[in-house]
Amino acid sequence: MQLGGVPGFRDLLPLEAEILREAQESLLAEMRRWGYRHVITPLVEAMDVLDLGLGVEQRRRLFKFTDGRGDVVALVGERTVPVARLVAGKLRTAALPLRLCYAGPVVSTEESRFQHRRETYQVGAELIGASGSVADAEVIALAARCMEATGIRRYQIDVGHAEFFHGIMDAVRLPEDVKTAVRAALGARDFVGLEALLEDTPLRSAEHELLLRFPALRGGLEILDAAAGLVRNERSENALAQLREVYGLLSEHGIGDVVILDLGAIRDFDYYTGVIFEGYGPDLGRPVAQGGRYDGLLARFGRAAPATGFVVQLDLVSEMLTRAARPPELPRVDAAIAWRGAAGLRGALRVGSTLRLFGMRAVVDTESRTQDAARTWWQAVGAANLIFCADRATVTWSARGQRARRLPPEQVAARLAGGIA
Amino acid sequence: MQLGGVPGFRDLLPLEAEILREAQESLLAEMRRWGYRHVITPLVEAMDVLDLGLGVEQRRRLFKFTDGRGDVVALVGERTVPVARLVAGKLRTAALPLRLCYAGPVVSTEESRFQHRRETYQVGAELIGASGSVADAEVIALAARCMEATGIRRYQIDVGHAEFFHGIMDAVRLPEDVKTAVRAALGARDFVGLEALLEDTPLRSAEHELLLRFPALRGGLEILDAAAGLVRNERSENALAQLREVYGLLSEHGIGDVVILDLGAIRDFDYYTGVIFEGYGPDLGRPVAQGGRYDGLLARFGRAAPATGFVVQLDLVSEMLTRAARPPELPRVDAAIAWRGAAGLRGALRVGSTLRLFGMRAVVDTESRTQDAARTWWQAVGAANLIFCADRATVTWSARGQRARRLPPEQVAARLAGGIA
Repeated sequence: MQLGGVPGFRDLLPLEAEILREAQESLLAEMRRWGYRHVITPLVEAMDVLDLGLGVEQRRRLFKFTDGRGDVVALVGERTVPVARLVAGKLRTAALPLRLCYAGPVVSTEESRFQHRRETYQVGAELIGASGSVADAEVIALAARCMEATGIRRYQIDVGHAEFFHGIMDAVRLPEDVKTAVRAALGARDFVGLEALLEDTPLRSAEHELLLRFPALRGGLEILDAAAGLVRNERSENALAQLREVYGLLSEHGIGDVVILDLGAIRDFDYYTGVIFEGYGPDLGRPVAQGGRYDGLLARFGRAAPATGFVVQLDLVSEMLTRAARPPELPRVDAAIAWRGAAGLRGALRVGSTLRLFGMRAVVDTESRTQDAARTWWQAVGAANLIFCADRATVTWSARGQRARRLPPEQVAARLAGGIA
Repeated sequence: MQLGGVPGFRDLLPLEAEILREAQESLLAEMRRWGYRHVITPLVEAMDVLDLGLGVEQRRRLFKFTDGRGDVVALVGERTVPVARLVAGKLRTAALPLRLCYAGPVVSTEESRFQHRRETYQVGAELIGASGSVADAEVIALAARCMEATGIRRYQIDVGHAEFFHGIMDAVRLPEDVKTAVRAALGARDFVGLEALLEDTPLRSAEHELLLRFPALRGGLEILDAAAGLVRNERSENALAQLREVYGLLSEHGIGDVVILDLGAIRDFDYYTGVIFEGYGPDLGRPVAQGGRYDGLLARFGRAAPATGFVVQLDLVSEMLTRAARPPELPRVDAAIAWRGAAGLRGALRVGSTLRLFGMRAVVDTESRTQDAARTWWQAVGAANLIFCADRATVTWSARGQRARRLPPEQVAARLAGGIA
């Protein structure tokens, strides 16, 4: 029997579960401050909806099954497509732009590189119906503030542009199969393979050279100047102009110092149509946040509209917080309340109820104990204080490292609140 | 194309989504105050795990599929069994009793009676490793405080006992097929059918009579006295004694006035082994909370332990709050910040950032507008205030029903905080 659960589907124990949920609530709170409205989309979507929005690779990784009526459905692997369906469907009469956010699990048949997980937790935001640099910058700045809100101390945001690459691919005039191979090599950051591919081609152009220099096209505004001197096509030139604008706005948003321009970032280029970005925490290996402009998606659902957004991988946030220098701790139970006899129990229930009214965490024992046994139980509960009720008139209060003292029950809440504060 | 999604799998729009999430967070917060620790179990479980814990009917309603490695898995339809697996597996070395809580979606192939939903949202708590009336009463009192915490104003808790019924069924000595039919008739509250069933049987006993009086066995302590006078079997007598103890403790917990004893409540009797309960809001048709003692489940996973717990149906809570006399409102965006020109935009970004630092919800426009166009946009955003930035030196502030006035940008946050508070 798999008491550990299905491979890739993990249990989150109390500390990890509370870190993850707290990060999730912080993210949603930050998104709400920017005027984003919470929506909840279902776990299960029809394949004809997902077919419209997802690429071949993403569709392949879906858990598919029939819904009992013959329709093929799947567990969601991301929630941007469901949100697009919602905006084009149930929200079709809502005025644009719409700012929406969501949180929930997503599932993949393939194990992620991160701890082989197949179920992961995401929080995302979508700004639908707004084109232009102000919208692009808003979403990037929101992503940055979201990373801060979770408590990640050091982070950076890499910003690139899908059109810069598209323009170059138009200009190089390579055979289609070579273009596909170039795309794959760049996506995998396989620059040796890329060089080999390009060496075999007869034509040479400025863009051809540029492709070889992709890994170096990373840094501050100077990168835009360098690239502008090399490209000779309108799509790439427009992309550079937009990036310059967005970069300026990000400085106005106060996050210029965490932004790195990266013209070589190649990611899901069939999907993204403009400015794209990735947020990294102290561990630079895997992006915690990913997003960008996807102006083509909404039209596939019959409501053409520009859109941009991003998703935060909660599992990575949680992992980063756990590995921080001062990792979050599980909040202590404030009081373990033990009792002896019926009168003690009555007193214990009353003290517990009062402490909870004060917002404290209080556990009342489920069985009668001697005072000595109560101290052992206190250790097991791991509470900050032990309250022992032997009758209704007085209780014994023990705090770690202090001698026990007797109190009237009505003083317990005030004394504990004082001691805990 | 199903732009509305798969039947039974709904989108929750902003108001409904925020009501549901707020109810969920309130429930989890109350559970934490009672010392319950949050755990997250996966969406997908192995069928061999679920087979161990679920009844035939529950298994039939699962969405099953293979996980790509040949193992049959299913989407969870409840989370008590996964928590039991967790306690017997990953948490097997944790000292009992354990207090755990969880929140998440569950899925059923069958549409629920409530709005035909197949995906619903649950929050639950489990107290594992504690037997006896104090534990039973704790969980019922927690359920009551949870209902209050969501904001449900009028509620009641029906409390019964699985053993009371088991004792009677032992005593009546009916053929097995008649017992099954009696069980079904009682479960469906089909008392006419029940009478017909019992008329055809030759043997008559006190318990036989009692079965016919089941619908009347509902009320206060007097019900226990009445039933005690009728039963002649130990199982039922013990059940009545336990109910009397629990009832007394619930009064000590301060919820005696919302508790109704219901000896005729028949529900999942193969699963529950002791005190059972259901919480109802003002709409008495469907229980918002359900739970009880299930001392047999953990042993099936190799860690025998008594247990009790309950689950809250968030969809029903949300529905009840929405239909209340004063339904919750979607929190307003505090400020819609419009701008004209590059200098206006710079000012707008700064004002937006400041307002958010004050915890306010602020939307900055994504395009340059005239002051007139800004007022139209303000209406669409539905914000409490409009801030218009034409340059960096001054802004125009409009609040509903007040004349517009000009302010230095650094005064906006304080003025809005004053106006909003």
